[in-house]
Amino acid sequence: MDQAYAHFEKSLPGGVDIAKAKESLLNQKIETPSWGYADSGTRFQVFHQPGAARTVFEKLDDAAMVHQMTGITPSVALHIPWDEVDDYERVVDYAAELDLTIGAINPNLFQEPEYKLGSLCHPDKVVRRKALDHILECIEIMNITGSKVLSLWLADGTNYPGQDDFRARKKRLEDTLRIVCDALADDQRLLIEYKFFEPAFYHTDLADWGMATLLATKLGPKAQTLVDLGHHPLGTNIEQIVAYLIDEGKLGGFHFNSKKYADDDLTTGSTNPYELFLIYNELVAGAEDLQEDLNVAYMIDQSHNVKPKVAAMIQSVESIQAAYAKALLVDRQALREAQREGDIIGAETILRAAYDRDVTPLLVNVREELQVPIAPLEAYRQSGYQEKIARERG
Amino acid sequence: MDQAYAHFEKSLPGGVDIAKAKESLLNQKIETPSWGYADSGTRFQVFHQPGAARTVFEKLDDAAMVHQMTGITPSVALHIPWDEVDDYERVVDYAAELDLTIGAINPNLFQEPEYKLGSLCHPDKVVRRKALDHILECIEIMNITGSKVLSLWLADGTNYPGQDDFRARKKRLEDTLRIVCDALADDQRLLIEYKFFEPAFYHTDLADWGMATLLATKLGPKAQTLVDLGHHPLGTNIEQIVAYLIDEGKLGGFHFNSKKYADDDLTTGSTNPYELFLIYNELVAGAEDLQEDLNVAYMIDQSHNVKPKVAAMIQSVESIQAAYAKALLVDRQALREAQREGDIIGAETILRAAYDRDVTPLLVNVREELQVPIAPLEAYRQSGYQEKIARERG
Amino acid sequence: MDQAYAHFEKSLPGGVDIAKAKESLLNQKIETPSWGYADSGTRFQVFHQPGAARTVFEKLDDAAMVHQMTGITPSVALHIPWDEVDDYERVVDYAAELDLTIGAINPNLFQEPEYKLGSLCHPDKVVRRKALDHILECIEIMNITGSKVLSLWLADGTNYPGQDDFRARKKRLEDTLRIVCDALADDQRLLIEYKFFEPAFYHTDLADWGMATLLATKLGPKAQTLVDLGHHPLGTNIEQIVAYLIDEGKLGGFHFNSKKYADDDLTTGSTNPYELFLIYNELVAGAEDLQEDLNVAYMIDQSHNVKPKVAAMIQSVESIQAAYAKALLVDRQALREAQREGDIIGAETILRAAYDRDVTPLLVNVREELQVPIAPLEAYRQSGYQEKIARERG
Amino acid sequence: MDQAYAHFEKSLPGGVDIAKAKESLLNQKIETPSWGYADSGTRFQVFHQPGAARTVFEKLDDAAMVHQMTGITPSVALHIPWDEVDDYERVVDYAAELDLTIGAINPNLFQEPEYKLGSLCHPDKVVRRKALDHILECIEIMNITGSKVLSLWLADGTNYPGQDDFRARKKRLEDTLRIVCDALADDQRLLIEYKFFEPAFYHTDLADWGMATLLATKLGPKAQTLVDLGHHPLGTNIEQIVAYLIDEGKLGGFHFNSKKYADDDLTTGSTNPYELFLIYNELVAGAEDLQEDLNVAYMIDQSHNVKPKVAAMIQSVESIQAAYAKALLVDRQALREAQREGDIIGAETILRAAYDRDVTPLLVNVREELQVPIAPLEAYRQSGYQEKIARERG
Repeated sequence: MDQAYAHFEKSLPGGVDIAKAKESLLNQKIETPSWGYADSGTRFQVFHQPGAARTVFEKLDDAAMVHQMTGITPSVALHIPWDEVDDYERVVDYAAELDLTIGAINPNLFQEPEYKLGSLCHPDKVVRRKALDHILECIEIMNITGSKVLSLWLADGTNYPGQDDFRARKKRLEDTLRIVCDALADDQRLLIEYKFFEPAFYHTDLADWGMATLLATKLGPKAQTLVDLGHHPLGTNIEQIVAYLIDEGKLGGFHFNSKKYADDDLTTGSTNPYELFLIYNELVAGAEDLQEDLNVAYMIDQSHNVKPKVAAMIQSVESIQAAYAKALLVDRQALREAQREGDIIGAETILRAAYDRDVTPLLVNVREELQVPIAPLEAYRQSGYQEKIARERG
Repeated sequence: MDQAYAHFEKSLPGGVDIAKAKESLLNQKIETPSWGYADSGTRFQVFHQPGAARTVFEKLDDAAMVHQMTGITPSVALHIPWDEVDDYERVVDYAAELDLTIGAINPNLFQEPEYKLGSLCHPDKVVRRKALDHILECIEIMNITGSKVLSLWLADGTNYPGQDDFRARKKRLEDTLRIVCDALADDQRLLIEYKFFEPAFYHTDLADWGMATLLATKLGPKAQTLVDLGHHPLGTNIEQIVAYLIDEGKLGGFHFNSKKYADDDLTTGSTNPYELFLIYNELVAGAEDLQEDLNVAYMIDQSHNVKPKVAAMIQSVESIQAAYAKALLVDRQALREAQREGDIIGAETILRAAYDRDVTPLLVNVREELQVPIAPLEAYRQSGYQEKIARERG
Repeated sequence: MDQAYAHFEKSLPGGVDIAKAKESLLNQKIETPSWGYADSGTRFQVFHQPGAARTVFEKLDDAAMVHQMTGITPSVALHIPWDEVDDYERVVDYAAELDLTIGAINPNLFQEPEYKLGSLCHPDKVVRRKALDHILECIEIMNITGSKVLSLWLADGTNYPGQDDFRARKKRLEDTLRIVCDALADDQRLLIEYKFFEPAFYHTDLADWGMATLLATKLGPKAQTLVDLGHHPLGTNIEQIVAYLIDEGKLGGFHFNSKKYADDDLTTGSTNPYELFLIYNELVAGAEDLQEDLNVAYMIDQSHNVKPKVAAMIQSVESIQAAYAKALLVDRQALREAQREGDIIGAETILRAAYDRDVTPLLVNVREELQVPIAPLEAYRQSGYQEKIARERG
Repeated sequence: MDQAYAHFEKSLPGGVDIAKAKESLLNQKIETPSWGYADSGTRFQVFHQPGAARTVFEKLDDAAMVHQMTGITPSVALHIPWDEVDDYERVVDYAAELDLTIGAINPNLFQEPEYKLGSLCHPDKVVRRKALDHILECIEIMNITGSKVLSLWLADGTNYPGQDDFRARKKRLEDTLRIVCDALADDQRLLIEYKFFEPAFYHTDLADWGMATLLATKLGPKAQTLVDLGHHPLGTNIEQIVAYLIDEGKLGGFHFNSKKYADDDLTTGSTNPYELFLIYNELVAGAEDLQEDLNVAYMIDQSHNVKPKVAAMIQSVESIQAAYAKALLVDRQALREAQREGDIIGAETILRAAYDRDVTPLLVNVREELQVPIAPLEAYRQSGYQEKIARERG
């Protein structure tokens, strides 16, 4: 292994600072979602998985296992009311015992019968108030759990032309979110998610990054945009949107997953690993150019329903880690020169050299320092954990 | 009204045979689906509708109401096991009392836990056998209900590269469907549906009309292709596929609905009414050129979850009826001449003259002859039926 | 005809103000593009059309013919250098003799060899300066022609990952357009067009309405967004974008055309006429709600290469006129009530009543008042103009 | 290097036969297209490249350079009339001197003015005859050049509804291609290409693999389907189509290139390298399962207009070679077992282990045996060839 790493280090281009890359990898943090450990499915069927977590505590157990294997997933996002409990301090304590913290709080604005025609955009102010109250309750939970991120996915939209008034809905949304922002502390952020379509099929009130970002801009510094990798029209250049948001200071966070068609919610990196690398390439370049931490919340949000949940989460974390590692190995000085000279093939070759590299030696090195298994997925699959939860949770 | 019709008739181009058009409209038959009267939803939420049908008998009651209002929906498709009963003769009798017959039988190959990795394409032959047995059971039901159409939607597919072997699955499917075709009587048909994606997100075993039709061709004359309007990639020219299938003698039937993005299952004609007209334009032209009935099963399959079910069904039937009416008013002789001369604007203008026409007078005339309300949707909305079922079904 | 109009008027719902609708139609103005009268094509072939205009004067002759037939196309957009002349006053005078004015000026930033890697976003400042100078020259032309609109389509983008730096290009663009805005008079506007892809195939610097609008917002009141109907990902709800831009005060204008797949540049309204209606529905509602003229530049931009140019333009103008007429006939009061009550079918029915209506009697009435042929396309096709230009222009 | 290869070999899973993989790589053949060495562009601009080949002889010179660098591109596809000469034997001789042979012959059915409304599908039989005669002339050229592949891309389609009759065009096409097949020798093949859209924007006569393959099936064993990677709707699972065509014995060949949006014609492997690997994975598995050579024509067809042509071709060849190398390293026995057990993560991990591997040591080894530079692109860029042709060709 040492030999492999030595060989790896020697093969890097001169412009790469391997010590800095390693430090970045040691500091990488990815948040896993509580709902990623529970059963999920499509509209056609939810296939029950043996051992799928049923309570927030079981979800935390699973998240802890992921963190134990990977060393880089110390926080867990909650979804309210799926993770509703009487006493959130108990959740915080339970998490702490597992070396975890509570991350983003996700309100649910799509499962109450009242939300059939929308929540924050609903024509009836009684429904809007109900939705707002739920969010305010989530902020109270944040205050208990120490969460700094309110992660808002708005399912609002319409199914048929004429169903409602686009501009009226836009105003309702803006008005309510102002109240939300006022209720947030200065070190808490509202991350506004957008989505091309589903569950609404004619229009979605926050359909693209432009709608989310124009809104976040009006709402001020507490509001930022959340990029879910599965929420764009096919063909969209997501890394460009990431770069634009970095430049505007509005990149709040990610929901990582993979898609081939629509919001498929597959495990991260499974469909087009090169795209994931190109996104990380922008993140690394942005942080370097701005010479500051971008303060981005890196969160997984996937609901693959055929892979075992915990293993799938570890697989996703490995994918993201590898993408980051490769992006850190881009020779940026050489890239800038090639760009300046209009040497397209040269510039592409520099990127591809980093992407095509086998980063296992580097990751092994990092994992040793993190004191986790050098092959997390394999270690997990041999750990007996899956069999244990299947047995214990019934 | 008579005046309006007289004006309408006078305004038609010479090449249109209005008597024949009326006769075609009087003979039009559209099948409604039992599941279109029950609650449905997205993967995020099923919104319960007051009065939604809960049993096959309530579904038949609703279908009867649609037929009473429109006069052109005399049959109802069943879905097994959603409509499973002990005694199918009782269903047939109940339907007959309501002036209805039982149409296509739809097996369900996606809701058993065993089907997580597929049904007829599953790597394990025990699961394939289970799926086959379910289909054979459906054929027995067909024999009781007098159904002539076995309508097969195969949800099989995979979510991740490597998950299974494309060619092995293809062979498994072909082998099983041969047995199915053998079990069908000579006047019964297997209609093979295809779908671009969902619920599988990496590959779908029958992903397009080509896969379905190559298979149907191998299976022989009992097998045909079923076109669901929501199952294509965006941009697909569906009317061309319809024309090709007519030409190959493989157009078995339709599942009518609307989509803007994916398989949105919106009410028929709501997204792009011109497309629905262009599809009917091919059907009318095909029947005329072949001088025979095309023997196509026209079935609605939609699961819009925000409109009241019965009203939505009537609205869809009206849309389809209007599209057919307009297609019957195309001056085909003039169209052929314009095509021969390469007069693109002329040809398009002939189509648009039919499409842009207000066909209300013709439809009123037809409905009077069918002895149904002249404005079915309006009549239904004033009938009190919705309030009645909401009250009675709780 | 009078009888038809009387019948038409009588059939309108109570909430429609027909006098106001007629007035709106009499005041409608659509700008046609000079390049829409010249030969065009795909990357595979430019099919020469007999009589296609070769000079700006011939283009004006054709535009005058369109205006003569329709009465609502009094201005013509120019494209520089395609319409470059030594003396623009001569062009203005020639237009004036034909009862035309010069509309938007369109700079060309994609046909010089220097622009291979971009124009305003090019890594080399010499190239950026060249592009800027061209735009400034266009503003000088505007000052001569009295044009109020600078219509900017930026073809800039990259074809391969790594080719250039997204954020650096974004900054270059913003810097240059500030200079452009400073050079514009207070009553002149910069309309910023966006496009999903083509001619760049990895990223486009202004890829969507969000990028254009964030930029226009920074540039201040002289800058607005231009919506080209063919420049969106498939499935995009364009009418929602229109509504959002109206609400933000950033809707500058349209480039009308049709698409089924990509930027197909087909004649307006040919692919999905309902979508065109829904867009106009937002425009009418927006103007009514804001109680002011929206100051939108309605411009056609299509390069269909198989239809005869002048006839195709008239056909497009008729499509747009019909869409506007139908949108004016929506019973907005009833629509608002249905929306308030959550009556989705009712609301949709109100829209569809307007869309499905045959507006010929109204358009005939308007055309009589405009003193143009009551069936412009037909009149044109019988006028002999096409034969004349084919003969004269060789 | 030897050490790197030793390390590489040792790291392979047990199920991989490295000797066989090497042999396969030594036998790999990729055909480059003559038109890939000439200037090309988008509909907006053709950017001239210094040194771009102007004659078939210059194109062969460039192709020879690619073959010299890579060792696996011994044949060149011609396009008629772009490569038309009086004496094709001279072309064959010239190629032979450069160690090249002539590969597929590509007729051109889209650049004559007569083809505005189609070629083989044109309503006028005079035009159809002209198109047929051109193809027959191409077959005569094949007989001189020893070509075994007639590569047919049919640009035919319509732009507007009603423009022509789908079924009539389908019949015209089938009738003409029967004559073409009769004219081919038994060892010559007709490869039928399909394309989703462009240059036609309403319908394309051969729009998908189903249309091409149904046609090829009717035409008999001389006809097969040609898969161009850029000719599918977004999201299409191309590797599944490849597997299906292998299973049907109808996979005739490939046109390799990359796309992100439409038929972007970028250099192969540049957009989604994982997809290219997955396609090769099916080719390797298919050949192994059928235990025979698949007789597939592997042809590059790209018209990237910003990269230097020869370098871009070498870069593409390297991409394809790497994809093949990785596919050869999949542990198929282990994969089959994981599939049989329904171990989705295990199966995916086996594929990804091969894909994520750095195959440079293997490729270096193969190149040494082929006696070509171990880093072809780098060697080419340092060879001075680009400067030489820029100088000589002006």
